[in-house]
Amino acid sequence: MEPALHPDVEALACLLGRWSGEGEGHYPTIEPFAYREEISLDHSGKPFLAYRQRTVRVDTGVPAHAEMGYLRGIGRGQVELVIAHPTGVAEVAEGTAEVTADGVVVRLHSTSVTGTATAKEVLSIERSFAVAGDVLSYDLSMAAVGQPLQHHLHAELLRQA
Amino acid sequence: MEPALHPDVEALACLLGRWSGEGEGHYPTIEPFAYREEISLDHSGKPFLAYRQRTVRVDTGVPAHAEMGYLRGIGRGQVELVIAHPTGVAEVAEGTAEVTADGVVVRLHSTSVTGTATAKEVLSIERSFAVAGDVLSYDLSMAAVGQPLQHHLHAELLRQA
Repeated sequence: MEPALHPDVEALACLLGRWSGEGEGHYPTIEPFAYREEISLDHSGKPFLAYRQRTVRVDTGVPAHAEMGYLRGIGRGQVELVIAHPTGVAEVAEGTAEVTADGVVVRLHSTSVTGTATAKEVLSIERSFAVAGDVLSYDLSMAAVGQPLQHHLHAELLRQA
Repeated sequence: MEPALHPDVEALACLLGRWSGEGEGHYPTIEPFAYREEISLDHSGKPFLAYRQRTVRVDTGVPAHAEMGYLRGIGRGQVELVIAHPTGVAEVAEGTAEVTADGVVVRLHSTSVTGTATAKEVLSIERSFAVAGDVLSYDLSMAAVGQPLQHHLHAELLRQA
Protein backbone atom coordinates (compact mmCIF):
# COMPACT_ATOMS: atom_id res chain seq x y z
CA MET A 1 0.00 0.00 0.00
CA GLU A 2 1.28 3.45 -0.94
CA PRO A 3 1.96 5.46 2.24
CA ALA A 4 0.28 8.86 2.62
CA LEU A 5 2.37 11.82 1.48
CA HIS A 6 3.98 13.73 4.36
CA PRO A 7 2.47 17.24 4.74
CA ASP A 8 5.93 18.85 4.45
CA VAL A 9 6.25 17.60 0.85
CA GLU A 10 2.66 18.22 -0.26
CA ALA A 11 3.78 21.18 -2.38
CA LEU A 12 6.12 18.76 -4.22
CA ALA A 13 3.45 16.12 -4.95
CA CYS A 14 3.27 17.01 -8.66
CA LEU A 15 6.96 16.06 -9.02
CA LEU A 16 6.31 12.43 -8.05
CA GLY A 17 6.61 9.80 -10.76
CA ARG A 18 8.74 9.14 -13.81
CA TRP A 19 9.78 11.71 -16.38
CA SER A 20 11.46 11.34 -19.77
CA GLY A 21 12.80 14.00 -22.13
CA GLU A 22 15.77 15.79 -23.60
CA GLY A 23 18.19 18.51 -22.62
CA GLU A 24 21.12 20.57 -23.78
CA GLY A 25 24.35 21.45 -22.02
CA HIS A 26 27.08 23.99 -22.62
CA TYR A 27 30.06 25.34 -20.70
CA PRO A 28 33.16 27.30 -21.74
CA THR A 29 35.44 24.31 -21.19
CA ILE A 30 33.51 21.74 -23.27
CA GLU A 31 31.68 21.30 -26.58
CA PRO A 32 27.88 21.82 -26.40
CA PHE A 33 26.01 18.53 -26.10
CA ALA A 34 22.47 17.13 -26.22
CA TYR A 35 21.17 14.40 -23.95
CA ARG A 36 18.16 12.20 -23.30
CA GLU A 37 17.14 11.99 -19.66
CA GLU A 38 15.06 9.85 -17.31
CA ILE A 39 14.10 11.24 -13.89
CA SER A 40 12.25 9.45 -11.11
CA LEU A 41 10.94 10.88 -7.86
CA ASP A 42 9.23 8.79 -5.20
CA HIS A 43 8.45 8.93 -1.50
CA SER A 44 8.07 6.63 1.51
CA GLY A 45 5.72 8.72 3.68
CA LYS A 46 8.59 10.70 5.16
CA PRO A 47 9.20 14.44 4.56
CA PHE A 48 11.45 13.98 1.52
CA LEU A 49 11.36 12.74 -2.06
CA ALA A 50 13.99 10.33 -3.36
CA TYR A 51 15.37 11.67 -6.66
CA ARG A 52 17.28 9.81 -9.38
CA GLN A 53 18.23 10.73 -12.89
CA ARG A 54 20.31 9.32 -15.72
CA THR A 55 21.22 10.74 -19.07
CA VAL A 56 22.59 9.33 -22.30
CA ARG A 57 24.18 11.27 -25.15
CA VAL A 58 21.72 11.84 -28.01
CA ASP A 59 24.46 11.32 -30.61
CA THR A 60 25.87 8.05 -29.27
CA GLY A 61 23.36 6.64 -26.72
CA VAL A 62 26.28 6.26 -24.33
CA PRO A 63 25.55 6.89 -20.60
CA ALA A 64 26.55 10.45 -19.71
CA HIS A 65 25.68 12.02 -16.35
CA ALA A 66 23.78 10.51 -13.43
CA GLU A 67 22.93 11.80 -9.98
CA MET A 68 20.70 10.92 -7.06
CA GLY A 69 19.69 12.25 -3.71
CA TYR A 70 16.87 13.64 -1.65
CA LEU A 71 14.63 16.71 -1.84
CA ARG A 72 13.50 17.56 1.68
CA GLY A 73 10.44 19.59 2.62
CA ILE A 74 11.02 21.46 5.86
CA GLY A 75 7.77 23.44 5.99
CA ARG A 76 6.69 27.00 5.15
CA GLY A 77 7.63 26.55 1.46
CA GLN A 78 11.28 25.84 2.28
CA VAL A 79 13.16 22.92 0.74
CA GLU A 80 16.61 21.36 1.03
CA LEU A 81 18.45 19.15 -1.44
CA VAL A 82 21.29 16.65 -0.98
CA ILE A 83 22.72 15.09 -4.13
CA ALA A 84 25.54 12.60 -4.75
CA HIS A 85 27.29 12.87 -8.12
CA PRO A 86 29.29 9.93 -9.57
CA THR A 87 32.01 12.47 -10.39
CA GLY A 88 32.84 12.51 -6.67
CA VAL A 89 30.88 15.68 -5.89
CA ALA A 90 28.39 16.08 -3.01
CA GLU A 91 25.91 18.94 -3.33
CA VAL A 92 23.95 20.44 -0.43
CA ALA A 93 21.40 23.13 -1.34
CA GLU A 94 18.56 25.15 0.12
CA GLY A 95 15.69 27.03 -1.46
CA THR A 96 11.97 27.42 -1.95
CA ALA A 97 9.01 25.57 -3.45
CA GLU A 98 6.24 27.79 -4.79
CA VAL A 99 2.95 26.19 -5.77
CA THR A 100 1.56 27.47 -9.09
CA ALA A 101 -1.79 27.11 -10.87
CA ASP A 102 -0.77 23.80 -12.48
CA GLY A 103 2.38 22.71 -10.67
CA VAL A 104 5.29 24.01 -8.67
CA VAL A 105 8.47 26.05 -9.10
CA VAL A 106 11.48 25.01 -7.01
CA ARG A 107 14.57 27.22 -6.75
CA LEU A 108 17.73 26.01 -5.02
CA HIS A 109 21.24 27.36 -4.46
CA SER A 110 24.07 25.31 -3.05
CA THR A 111 25.26 26.05 0.47
CA SER A 112 28.07 23.50 0.26
CA VAL A 113 29.70 21.63 -2.61
CA THR A 114 32.34 19.14 -1.50
CA GLY A 115 34.22 16.44 -3.34
CA THR A 116 36.62 13.55 -3.23
CA ALA A 117 40.33 14.07 -3.90
CA THR A 118 39.92 13.20 -7.59
CA ALA A 119 36.67 15.13 -8.22
CA LYS A 120 36.60 18.14 -10.53
CA GLU A 121 36.39 21.40 -8.63
CA VAL A 122 32.79 22.64 -8.37
CA LEU A 123 32.27 25.85 -6.36
CA SER A 124 28.53 26.36 -6.55
CA ILE A 125 25.36 25.14 -8.27
CA GLU A 126 22.00 26.84 -8.79
CA ARG A 127 18.98 24.84 -9.86
CA SER A 128 15.45 25.81 -10.77
CA PHE A 129 12.86 23.31 -11.83
CA ALA A 130 9.23 23.73 -12.64
CA VAL A 131 6.30 21.41 -13.17
CA ALA A 132 3.49 22.77 -15.35
CA GLY A 133 0.89 20.10 -15.94
CA ASP A 134 2.69 17.09 -17.39
CA VAL A 135 5.90 18.97 -18.27
CA LEU A 136 8.95 19.15 -16.00
CA SER A 137 11.60 21.66 -17.06
CA TYR A 138 14.78 22.65 -15.30
CA ASP A 139 17.80 24.90 -15.57
CA LEU A 140 21.13 24.44 -13.83
CA SER A 141 23.91 27.00 -13.45
CA MET A 142 27.33 26.10 -12.14
CA ALA A 143 30.63 27.67 -11.10
CA ALA A 144 33.30 25.03 -11.72
CA VAL A 145 36.85 24.39 -12.97
CA GLY A 146 37.79 28.07 -12.62
CA GLN A 147 34.72 29.43 -14.43
CA PRO A 148 32.24 31.87 -12.84
CA LEU A 149 28.64 30.85 -12.13
CA GLN A 150 26.83 30.49 -15.45
CA HIS A 151 24.12 28.56 -17.23
CA HIS A 152 25.06 24.93 -17.93
CA LEU A 153 21.95 22.78 -18.52
CA HIS A 154 18.35 23.11 -19.71
CA ALA A 155 15.96 20.20 -20.18
CA GLU A 156 12.27 19.47 -20.67
CA LEU A 157 10.69 16.17 -19.73
CA LEU A 158 7.20 14.68 -20.01
CA ARG A 159 5.39 12.74 -17.32
CA GLN A 160 5.41 9.00 -18.05
CA ALA A 161 2.30 6.86 -17.49
CA MET B 1 23.05 -5.39 -23.38
CA GLU B 2 25.00 -5.19 -20.12
CA PRO B 3 28.06 -2.94 -20.60
CA ALA B 4 31.49 -4.33 -19.71
CA LEU B 5 32.70 -3.55 -16.20
CA HIS B 6 35.23 -0.71 -16.09
CA PRO B 7 38.71 -1.96 -15.03
CA ASP B 8 38.85 0.53 -12.13
CA VAL B 9 35.90 -1.21 -10.43
CA GLU B 10 36.88 -4.82 -11.21
CA ALA B 11 37.85 -5.37 -7.57
CA LEU B 12 34.28 -4.38 -6.63
CA ALA B 13 32.55 -6.76 -9.08
CA CYS B 14 31.43 -9.14 -6.31
CA LEU B 15 29.40 -6.29 -4.76
CA LEU B 16 27.15 -5.97 -7.81
CA GLY B 17 23.55 -7.12 -7.48
CA ARG B 18 20.84 -7.12 -4.87
CA TRP B 19 21.29 -7.98 -1.21
CA SER B 20 18.78 -8.57 1.57
CA GLY B 21 19.32 -9.07 5.30
CA GLU B 22 19.16 -7.67 8.80
CA GLY B 23 21.15 -5.35 10.99
CA GLU B 24 21.35 -3.81 14.44
CA GLY B 25 22.03 -0.25 15.48
CA HIS B 26 22.98 1.42 18.72
CA TYR B 27 24.17 4.85 19.83
CA PRO B 28 24.31 6.58 23.22
CA THR B 29 21.52 9.00 22.30
CA ILE B 30 18.94 6.42 21.13
CA GLU B 31 17.42 3.04 22.00
CA PRO B 32 19.05 0.04 20.27
CA PHE B 33 17.10 -1.07 17.20
CA ALA B 34 16.93 -3.89 14.65
CA TYR B 35 16.28 -3.40 10.95
CA ARG B 36 15.71 -5.28 7.71
CA GLU B 37 17.70 -3.96 4.78
CA GLU B 38 17.78 -4.10 1.00
CA ILE B 39 20.93 -2.99 -0.84
CA SER B 40 21.44 -2.73 -4.59
CA LEU B 41 24.65 -2.01 -6.48
CA ASP B 42 24.81 -1.67 -10.24
CA HIS B 43 27.05 -0.15 -12.91
CA SER B 44 26.83 1.47 -16.34
CA GLY B 45 30.31 0.68 -17.67
CA LYS B 46 31.84 3.72 -15.98
CA PRO B 47 34.37 3.56 -13.12
CA PHE B 48 31.78 3.63 -10.32
CA LEU B 49 28.97 1.57 -8.83
CA ALA B 50 25.60 3.14 -8.06
CA TYR B 51 24.60 2.23 -4.50
CA ARG B 52 21.15 2.33 -2.89
CA GLN B 53 19.83 0.95 0.34
CA ARG B 54 16.63 1.10 2.36
CA THR B 55 15.80 -0.23 5.78
CA VAL B 56 12.61 -0.90 7.69
CA ARG B 57 12.26 -1.43 11.43
CA VAL B 58 11.99 -5.15 12.31
CA ASP B 59 9.43 -4.40 15.04
CA THR B 60 7.06 -2.24 13.00
CA GLY B 61 7.95 -2.67 9.30
CA VAL B 62 8.01 1.13 9.04
CA PRO B 63 10.64 2.66 6.69
CA ALA B 64 13.69 3.71 8.72
CA HIS B 65 16.92 4.86 7.07
CA ALA B 66 17.74 5.15 3.38
CA GLU B 67 20.81 6.39 1.54
CA MET B 68 22.22 6.36 -1.95
CA GLY B 69 25.31 7.39 -3.81
CA TYR B 70 28.31 6.21 -5.76
CA LEU B 71 31.34 4.05 -4.99
CA ARG B 72 34.17 5.12 -7.29
CA GLY B 73 37.18 3.05 -8.26
CA ILE B 74 40.18 5.27 -8.91
CA GLY B 75 42.78 2.56 -9.49
CA ARG B 76 45.54 0.96 -7.43
CA GLY B 77 43.03 -0.43 -4.89
CA GLN B 78 41.81 3.05 -3.96
CA VAL B 79 38.11 3.89 -3.74
CA GLU B 80 35.99 6.97 -3.07
CA LEU B 81 32.41 7.19 -1.86
CA VAL B 82 29.80 9.94 -2.16
CA ILE B 83 26.50 9.38 -0.34
CA ALA B 84 23.35 11.48 0.04
CA HIS B 85 21.34 10.92 3.21
CA PRO B 86 17.65 11.91 3.43
CA THR B 87 18.48 13.43 6.83
CA GLY B 88 20.17 16.27 4.92
CA VAL B 89 23.70 14.91 5.28
CA ALA B 90 26.21 14.54 2.42
CA GLU B 91 29.10 12.13 3.03
CA VAL B 92 32.36 12.12 1.07
CA ALA B 93 34.81 9.32 1.91
CA GLU B 94 38.02 7.72 0.71
CA GLY B 95 39.58 4.33 1.34
CA THR B 96 40.73 1.02 -0.02
CA ALA B 97 39.33 -2.11 -1.67
CA GLU B 98 41.26 -5.29 -0.94
CA VAL B 99 40.43 -8.42 -2.94
CA THR B 100 40.17 -11.57 -0.80
CA ALA B 101 39.93 -15.30 -1.59
CA ASP B 102 36.13 -15.15 -1.98
CA GLY B 103 35.25 -11.47 -2.15
CA VAL B 104 36.48 -8.05 -1.18
CA VAL B 105 36.99 -5.88 1.92
CA VAL B 106 36.34 -2.15 1.51
CA ARG B 107 37.35 0.34 4.21
CA LEU B 108 36.34 3.99 4.04
CA HIS B 109 36.69 7.04 6.25
CA SER B 110 34.92 10.31 5.63
CA THR B 111 36.97 13.28 4.45
CA SER B 112 33.98 15.61 4.51
CA VAL B 113 30.53 15.42 6.08
CA THR B 114 28.31 18.38 5.28
CA GLY B 115 24.64 19.03 5.82
CA THR B 116 21.67 21.27 5.28
CA ALA B 117 20.65 23.85 7.91
CA THR B 118 18.18 21.42 9.53
CA ALA B 119 20.38 18.28 9.39
CA LYS B 120 21.65 16.64 12.56
CA GLU B 121 25.32 17.32 13.14
CA VAL B 122 27.51 14.46 11.87
CA LEU B 123 31.28 14.97 12.22
CA SER B 124 32.69 11.79 10.72
CA ILE B 125 31.74 8.32 9.48
CA GLU B 126 33.83 5.18 9.09
CA ARG B 127 32.56 2.26 7.03
CA SER B 128 33.91 -1.19 6.38
CA PHE B 129 32.10 -3.70 4.27
CA ALA B 130 33.07 -7.16 3.17
CA VAL B 131 31.79 -9.65 0.65
CA ALA B 132 32.60 -13.30 1.40
CA GLY B 133 30.89 -15.55 -1.13
CA ASP B 134 27.19 -14.70 -1.04
CA VAL B 135 27.33 -12.77 2.25
CA LEU B 136 27.75 -9.01 2.47
CA SER B 137 28.45 -7.65 5.97
CA TYR B 138 29.22 -4.14 7.06
CA ASP B 139 30.01 -2.03 10.09
CA LEU B 140 29.57 1.71 10.42
CA SER B 141 31.01 3.99 13.09
CA MET B 142 29.95 7.59 13.50
CA ALA B 143 30.80 10.75 15.43
CA ALA B 144 27.57 12.74 15.65
CA VAL B 145 25.37 14.93 17.88
CA GLY B 146 28.24 15.62 20.30
CA GLN B 147 29.31 11.97 20.67
CA PRO B 148 32.83 10.70 19.81
CA LEU B 149 33.42 8.28 16.93
CA GLN B 150 31.96 4.91 17.89
CA HIS B 151 30.28 1.83 16.49
CA HIS B 152 26.71 2.46 15.29
CA LEU B 153 25.59 -0.24 12.82
CA HIS B 154 26.30 -3.86 11.93
CA ALA B 155 24.40 -5.85 9.30
CA GLU B 156 24.64 -9.05 7.30
CA LEU B 157 22.92 -9.54 3.97
CA LEU B 158 22.59 -12.41 1.49
CA ARG B 159 22.92 -12.15 -2.27
CA GLN B 160 19.53 -12.26 -3.98
CA ALA B 161 19.00 -14.29 -7.13
